[in-house]
Amino acid sequence: MTAEKLIIGVDFGTDSVRAVIINAENGTELANEVAWYKQWSAGKYCDPAKNMFRQHPLDYIDGMVESATGALAKAGKKAGSRVVGIGIDTTGSTPGAVDRQGTPLAMTKGFEENPNAMFVLWKDHTAVKEAELINKVARAWGGTDFTKYEGGVYSSEWFWSKILHILREDRKVRAAAFSWVEHCDWMAALITGTTDPLTMKRSRCAAGHKAMWHAEWNGLPPEEFLVKLDPVLKGLRARLYTETWTSDVKAGGLTDEWAERLGLNPGTAVAVGAFDAHMGGVGGQITGRTLVKIMGTSTCDMMVAPTRALGTKTVPGICGQVDGSIIPGMVGLEAGQSAFGDVYAWFKDILAWPLTVLAPASGKAGRGGGGAAVAKLREEVEDKLLDKLAEEAAKVDPSQSTLIALDWLNGRRTPFADQTLKGAIAGLTLGTTAPKIFRALVEATAFGSRAIVEQFRKEGVPIDSVIALGGISRKSPFVMQVTADVLGMPIRVAASDQTVALGAGMFASVAAGVYKNVSDAQKKMGSGFDKTFIPNPRMAETYRKLYKKYVMLGESLRGLLQTL
Amino acid sequence: MTAEKLIIGVDFGTDSVRAVIINAENGTELANEVAWYKQWSAGKYCDPAKNMFRQHPLDYIDGMVESATGALAKAGKKAGSRVVGIGIDTTGSTPGAVDRQGTPLAMTKGFEENPNAMFVLWKDHTAVKEAELINKVARAWGGTDFTKYEGGVYSSEWFWSKILHILREDRKVRAAAFSWVEHCDWMAALITGTTDPLTMKRSRCAAGHKAMWHAEWNGLPPEEFLVKLDPVLKGLRARLYTETWTSDVKAGGLTDEWAERLGLNPGTAVAVGAFDAHMGGVGGQITGRTLVKIMGTSTCDMMVAPTRALGTKTVPGICGQVDGSIIPGMVGLEAGQSAFGDVYAWFKDILAWPLTVLAPASGKAGRGGGGAAVAKLREEVEDKLLDKLAEEAAKVDPSQSTLIALDWLNGRRTPFADQTLKGAIAGLTLGTTAPKIFRALVEATAFGSRAIVEQFRKEGVPIDSVIALGGISRKSPFVMQVTADVLGMPIRVAASDQTVALGAGMFASVAAGVYKNVSDAQKKMGSGFDKTFIPNPRMAETYRKLYKKYVMLGESLRGLLQTL
Repeated sequence: MTAEKLIIGVDFGTDSVRAVIINAENGTELANEVAWYKQWSAGKYCDPAKNMFRQHPLDYIDGMVESATGALAKAGKKAGSRVVGIGIDTTGSTPGAVDRQGTPLAMTKGFEENPNAMFVLWKDHTAVKEAELINKVARAWGGTDFTKYEGGVYSSEWFWSKILHILREDRKVRAAAFSWVEHCDWMAALITGTTDPLTMKRSRCAAGHKAMWHAEWNGLPPEEFLVKLDPVLKGLRARLYTETWTSDVKAGGLTDEWAERLGLNPGTAVAVGAFDAHMGGVGGQITGRTLVKIMGTSTCDMMVAPTRALGTKTVPGICGQVDGSIIPGMVGLEAGQSAFGDVYAWFKDILAWPLTVLAPASGKAGRGGGGAAVAKLREEVEDKLLDKLAEEAAKVDPSQSTLIALDWLNGRRTPFADQTLKGAIAGLTLGTTAPKIFRALVEATAFGSRAIVEQFRKEGVPIDSVIALGGISRKSPFVMQVTADVLGMPIRVAASDQTVALGAGMFASVAAGVYKNVSDAQKKMGSGFDKTFIPNPRMAETYRKLYKKYVMLGESLRGLLQTL
Repeated sequence: MTAEKLIIGVDFGTDSVRAVIINAENGTELANEVAWYKQWSAGKYCDPAKNMFRQHPLDYIDGMVESATGALAKAGKKAGSRVVGIGIDTTGSTPGAVDRQGTPLAMTKGFEENPNAMFVLWKDHTAVKEAELINKVARAWGGTDFTKYEGGVYSSEWFWSKILHILREDRKVRAAAFSWVEHCDWMAALITGTTDPLTMKRSRCAAGHKAMWHAEWNGLPPEEFLVKLDPVLKGLRARLYTETWTSDVKAGGLTDEWAERLGLNPGTAVAVGAFDAHMGGVGGQITGRTLVKIMGTSTCDMMVAPTRALGTKTVPGICGQVDGSIIPGMVGLEAGQSAFGDVYAWFKDILAWPLTVLAPASGKAGRGGGGAAVAKLREEVEDKLLDKLAEEAAKVDPSQSTLIALDWLNGRRTPFADQTLKGAIAGLTLGTTAPKIFRALVEATAFGSRAIVEQFRKEGVPIDSVIALGGISRKSPFVMQVTADVLGMPIRVAASDQTVALGAGMFASVAAGVYKNVSDAQKKMGSGFDKTFIPNPRMAETYRKLYKKYVMLGESLRGLLQTL
């Protein structure tokens, strides 16, 4: 038995980090382990009422050690010695302030408990005002609109909004922060011993999609523009970066100290980090003319187009287009829906409300077996509700339904980001049932997917087929079938449960020299697809008409929804 | 002890008839008894899927005897001998075909089981096409638009639509029908022995609001117009009526036979019948500048205006305006909302769906006490749901809510009847809870009330205050407070639970000569008000703004909703 080369994909999510041990030859998974962020799980450094979500760097370090060593232990003796590469993906934009030595401020004296000295998680929305300012100035300052490769609208969830917000808010952090790093950049730098923020290998993906970095203006937006935003940014550009790197590039070799801590060989290749969704696209075997949808509570939609074909054309209304952000050598295009599975979870919560509110009282009344039965009932109802809704909704004929809904319950990400938009359900009658509403909500999220596809097509980016990854794609055949019917395209579902970590592993295998490029790694390591949802022609025709009504509903209500 | 004069108010509803024994001097109730329609309760002669609802005349007769004798028995010995008048109200428009002797065809040989030979209940919608035809021809035929005193839109629920539908559909009924009567006309004719349809005293209220009867064109629409609708109507006008009567007029005296059956004196005065809502308005002490809202599953909204003040002016968009239809000598104006309490019941059903669908399976699983507890839970949840929703919704600050809803879940009756409209909820976010939706629905029905008030005002009919009757007004303080806040006017709630029967009793007391007019009867017999909902000024201000958004929502969606 040959000791095949192994790769570790380390996938930092919102609540936990998962390390997956992957066979570099064929992509099969040997073992995986999840570690939950401890301080985050305890609710520390966050204020959901203010949409403030911060993560302590020690959560990341502890989580990485626990998950990697745990996975290696499961993979068997000597697995660690066979590992030739480490790939890392994280959420983003999740920036944090660092000192001159590249250490996150929260890990330095006096800042241990200061949320502003921690990583500002992707979904933190404290910088809404700063995002508004950036958009205003970008359009009005007289020079280039630096948001143009980011869909034309800069988000409060992104790098500069968050930095500006914290620099304005916290004098101490302002004084101590030498530079700022994305979570994915810092993890690779940390374990390869790169302590200088000026030479740290920065992710092309993070820089291009979230920091307005572009070759056209030679990197980050110029000092003149940044100072116009706020003088507090003066001098920062020079302490950030000019060059950026794709993840097929080796960030460095594992330090002796980290090799020891993780149980790996010193010098093991560590690939440049990137965002989870983009690596997921690669893991899901993205190729040209194929939309990869990562379908969970929200969606991330990934496309790649040949650099030559796109030229200098910008695609307005999406989340960004960056050369090499997904596959090196191609332009990566990102879009997404702010709420997808969250919409169904919301409706489930609405329906579960009577049980949550009224059942406790009943439970008390029904002593001796009764209380337990009631508790059991609540559990069962909660568990089965979405399945039962899907089962009944599948029987509803959409051509007979009077309902049309808007999926903007968490605002709209693409096309044309607008957080002031909201959801709606129109066409209610006294005969409208819960399954009919559920079906309308599922159709609405599918129409939201179609709106993204139409936007790409309108701007000259062709899409022929769809690949789906993520929880919804594997757990909700009803949702997937409706989405296929609405899109009028087959949807292939990636067979791996760990597509994102697999994508990180593909990059690591290239960085480690196992393959010469990502495309080869995809071919050898790809998990393939275990299910394809084929559109039903009759349904596709019905939905072609209903999609027009969805568009009409959105246009009719847009102005009003913005004021609600 | 003086033997005070008594009156019987007989109130025919949709499912049952209620007889109330009333003291003619002061309006207090001595006793009441309900009798359910037997064949109707068994679901006979109806097809809800086709919106076909027919009632057998024997249900009315049996119900009247059972309820009147039952109430008299409760009222004590010799109560029958003290009764001086009978007032009758029914639903409407509820017409039925009669033969030359004034007998409903269903009570003649060969028609006993034929639904087309029975009374066509107000909510029967089988005549949608005929209503469309009537509206089309009324506008295009070149003569007077006979719908103009009925708000400008003729409904499928009304007299001519239903007659035309049945004459077209049923040759046998067409051949046998000499004339047609409204339920309220027939009841009074029956017990006073008036068998000739040509001399039967017809209700002004029914004729004016539902049959396009008006003094301007000397009664019913002319033969020329009716034949233009369909030659099948040829000759019918002459077999109907020209004169109509208000309910302060005596239709006749009780026949010996009916006096015997009911346990009353022969010759007892029977007032001309009318519709329940209009008599309810009188029972609720309607006066000028006051809107009387009968609030149940839907609403009927009643106004009276001095004939002189209104002149020949028509109020478009309402359900009709008829001289004397409510109070003799004043113009009665009718409007209404197609769904009110039905909207809340609908939302309750949506929330109860999981229990209805999932609980039975759980019940089976949890044997021995568990099953019973589950059944109990379901019952409790169903019982308490609306109260709990109201309790939680009362805590929601409408100025902080993002929701606006349209109350047209059963189409829109007024202003400007449009059955193709539907409901909608806009402004949904992931933070939207069941109580917030409930509040938005309550606000929507209140906004619907306001739209009616605004329409009256716009057309020069002033409204200063509101009187409420019906189930919602007595059972739902939360709904009543929101409605008062939205209307910006105090709402007084009638103290009597039997306001409609009391109104019928007031008319009967005038017909019997106890009072010289309805106004005097109202003063002496009125029950007064036991609660007043005063608008909260801050809320009223908030709702003044939100009402504009409700109007905007309706205008934005109208075109789309009509196509759904």
